[in-house]
Amino acid sequence: MLAKIHVTLKNGVLDPQGKAVNSALNDLGFKEVRNVQIGKYMEVLLDGVSESEAQKRVKEMCDKLLANTVIETYRFTLDSSKK
Amino acid sequence: MLAKIHVTLKNGVLDPQGKAVNSALNDLGFKEVRNVQIGKYMEVLLDGVSESEAQKRVKEMCDKLLANTVIETYRFTLDSSKK
Repeated sequence: MLAKIHVTLKNGVLDPQGKAVNSALNDLGFKEVRNVQIGKYMEVLLDGVSESEAQKRVKEMCDKLLANTVIETYRFTLDSSKK
Repeated sequence: MLAKIHVTLKNGVLDPQGKAVNSALNDLGFKEVRNVQIGKYMEVLLDGVSESEAQKRVKEMCDKLLANTVIETYRFTLDSSKK
């Protein structure tokens, strides 16, 4: 089971990395760029769990380690075709 | 136009951050975790470009700044409903 997890900053949280990339793109001539937000993308491969177990376990992983839920939000999908 | 960009390490490139998160998850009791890969997820908001222009420009941004194409690969989708 492969979990594909997106962790992004909550709305209203300052994103200095995104601001820096936005400026850098503008400076490189990409004047059409108006906003950049940067997050993390993780793929976690799980062994021998059912889809419903995986749902519960991946949520726990996000809450405990993968996301800082004070400032970040997460979402994930499960792909059961990947072993 | 909102570009949703995933940047991930190419196959075969060592991912020490992924290995560290894998170990940390195992140590926290998530013994079912077998592999972790970590990448970046970026949302870039573009002003006043058509879908075909955006396609070309975002590819350029990835090649020039957003991805290190020696070790990373990227893919993106465009969402024209977001202004």
